[in-house]
Amino acid sequence: MSPDEAKLLAARAAIDELPVSGVVGLGSGSTAKLFIDEVGKLVKAGRDLVGVPTSEGSRAQAVALGIALLPDDGPWDIAVTIDGADEVDEDLNLIKGGGGAHTREKIVNYASRRNVIIVDGSKLSRRLGQKWPVPVEVVVFGREQTRKRLGELGRPVLRERGGAPFRTDAGNLIYDVHAGIIADPAALDRALRAIPGVVEAGLFVGRADLVLVAEASGVRRLSR
Amino acid sequence: MSPDEAKLLAARAAIDELPVSGVVGLGSGSTAKLFIDEVGKLVKAGRDLVGVPTSEGSRAQAVALGIALLPDDGPWDIAVTIDGADEVDEDLNLIKGGGGAHTREKIVNYASRRNVIIVDGSKLSRRLGQKWPVPVEVVVFGREQTRKRLGELGRPVLRERGGAPFRTDAGNLIYDVHAGIIADPAALDRALRAIPGVVEAGLFVGRADLVLVAEASGVRRLSR
Repeated sequence: MSPDEAKLLAARAAIDELPVSGVVGLGSGSTAKLFIDEVGKLVKAGRDLVGVPTSEGSRAQAVALGIALLPDDGPWDIAVTIDGADEVDEDLNLIKGGGGAHTREKIVNYASRRNVIIVDGSKLSRRLGQKWPVPVEVVVFGREQTRKRLGELGRPVLRERGGAPFRTDAGNLIYDVHAGIIADPAALDRALRAIPGVVEAGLFVGRADLVLVAEASGVRRLSR
Repeated sequence: MSPDEAKLLAARAAIDELPVSGVVGLGSGSTAKLFIDEVGKLVKAGRDLVGVPTSEGSRAQAVALGIALLPDDGPWDIAVTIDGADEVDEDLNLIKGGGGAHTREKIVNYASRRNVIIVDGSKLSRRLGQKWPVPVEVVVFGREQTRKRLGELGRPVLRERGGAPFRTDAGNLIYDVHAGIIADPAALDRALRAIPGVVEAGLFVGRADLVLVAEASGVRRLSR
């Protein structure tokens, strides 16, 4: 099974986790994109689902598919959010933000009664940090000062796109912090957020209720 | 002595805290403004001081006075930052952000080897929260969701200016969180920053080395 086929398998499995009707958090990234396509089909078939998008990308996709969206301001009563992840550890802690949307994703995740993560098997690690750096969104002012502080916790690399600094939907920057194997994700999350200038870190500790892992043999369900 | 005279007295006393030459963090707000005027006079007289401004307001003032400024990106090696505060407790913890600049002020404060706070006597409290709410800068996305979370820690009031939501230099919003008397400022600071969508809280815990308090009898020096 190709990675793309695995993503589609996980996205389809997530459909079973949706309420009959209600509010659904729409994740960002390539796997979430496949899931939103499936939601579009359900809505077209008459299912009463309303979305909260976690990025301008998912918003545009949802609008194009005719999925009704709640206002960005909230507050929302979200039954379940379906999102992808870059890395998932044995305790179902996550690294997210490869797409640069982790601040909004975290706001929506914390607003959801339930969070389902869809990945292919390549995203599983025993410990976080084996495969991915931790994305950290920072304000533009003092960016090199913030980099210096981040450097006490890992090796920060300014994310670029097309030769220029990548900008988040909110206009901020992202450092990908290479911190090696992360022994204590909660402590690192706290340490990162304690640095002035940091908006949000892409560590999600204890925030996944169910992880659907697409593998050659089918979809494996991991829950806490 | 009027409050304005007291502010001027404190601002002038802060001049003695400056290095012979070097980098100085320039605070924001009405008291810091008077201090920056004094720095302008020194620079005009030939003193070799370079500034790092904590807001667009202090930047404009410094530029008008001919004070050279370091680039916004940093990193900076700041000898001392002189800034105001809205409330100062007995342990020299601070509430800042009445002017909406506390995120940049915090970045510059943490980048300074020494921090001097200038206030008039009306800003002193036994405990923080007696006089001021805690300003909290939040991202625009999910603002009502974030307000709901802030509501678990106090009563959040969206700051407005001229009938519209106040915007920070970075384009974010501010909730002034009325949390009553604050028993443990460090714990509240951590709790506020743990809420997704919060950029920075206006609590400065253990970040003032010296507080200069202008009173009718003169300037009182409080240090930790």
